[in-house]
Amino acid sequence: MPLARIDLLTGKPDNYRQTIGDVVYGAMVDILKAPKDDRFQVINEHPASNFIFDPHFFGVERSADCIFIQLTLVSGRTLEQKQGFYKRVADELQHRLGVRREDVFINLVPVDREDWSFGNGEASLAKEK
Amino acid sequence: MPLARIDLLTGKPDNYRQTIGDVVYGAMVDILKAPKDDRFQVINEHPASNFIFDPHFFGVERSADCIFIQLTLVSGRTLEQKQGFYKRVADELQHRLGVRREDVFINLVPVDREDWSFGNGEASLAKEK
Amino acid sequence: MPLARIDLLTGKPDNYRQTIGDVVYGAMVDILKAPKDDRFQVINEHPASNFIFDPHFFGVERSADCIFIQLTLVSGRTLEQKQGFYKRVADELQHRLGVRREDVFINLVPVDREDWSFGNGEASLAKEK
Repeated sequence: MPLARIDLLTGKPDNYRQTIGDVVYGAMVDILKAPKDDRFQVINEHPASNFIFDPHFFGVERSADCIFIQLTLVSGRTLEQKQGFYKRVADELQHRLGVRREDVFINLVPVDREDWSFGNGEASLAKEK
Repeated sequence: MPLARIDLLTGKPDNYRQTIGDVVYGAMVDILKAPKDDRFQVINEHPASNFIFDPHFFGVERSADCIFIQLTLVSGRTLEQKQGFYKRVADELQHRLGVRREDVFINLVPVDREDWSFGNGEASLAKEK
Repeated sequence: MPLARIDLLTGKPDNYRQTIGDVVYGAMVDILKAPKDDRFQVINEHPASNFIFDPHFFGVERSADCIFIQLTLVSGRTLEQKQGFYKRVADELQHRLGVRREDVFINLVPVDREDWSFGNGEASLAKEK
């Protein structure tokens, strides 16, 4: 049910970017209760001039290793699930890649079940309504 | 009223990518009843390491030619229209490009009429509310 | 509260792209009442074959310098604020970069306050509910 767009500065090694994807996927399954293997992710690398963020906003000190994660997902997650997801992603990125927790920016975009087709031209989740 | 983001692996020829855009546009007009010429599309090509999907999720066998289509559009489409759109896009991509129907991933993001400006600094659709 | 995705043709100089970001940010703060320094922006440059728009739709004559601006933001802006935002962005891009007002395409994607984490694994805006 989710599609993740991950944006970061260009130049990180493949396994670094893969691990970001792994962390986002793992937190989706564990915390947001997405089904196993429900993984659709696009990673976009940018030169510094095209990847812009304030280094201090909201009292959070960001570095050049800031990562944006935008996740379109089926609506209905509770605030507790969302909080758990944010925490898990930040904690795991720090643990596995040394990313500073301050550098993890996340935005969710909830949509309905009928807004997804996983293939074959079918509204994959609509029948479960 | 729609903005389409189309993501796929890098390396397909220009006319292949153009045809994807043509198919998405045609299905929008025919099935979602978007106005003629209402076409705004961004295509992003990715190396394999940045374009990630599970090859089996939901019982659908995906190949490296998987395509993600994310369409932000005015809300209000019925389930029948959405189903028709998914089917039309998958069928036409298969028919015109030989894309496997399993390889067509689609996500819709509905927003309000007042969330669009087609130019000139105007809320293009708000006056029609 | 907003994440901006800005898409345009490849090849504009750095300061041109930076100014687009400045204009979008300024209009967010002045018109949408986003907090100072609330700036998260991704700019994507595309070859012409991957950046597709109708040159006439809705009676607006677009040139190759068309810019797409997609802004995910906290819901609750009034129509008047949205109208003011569209106008300000188009006016300022014309004033500061000579962009034709016809070439400014904008789409808003409203989401809830709890759908944001500005860092540290926290639901940054949820506590203010």
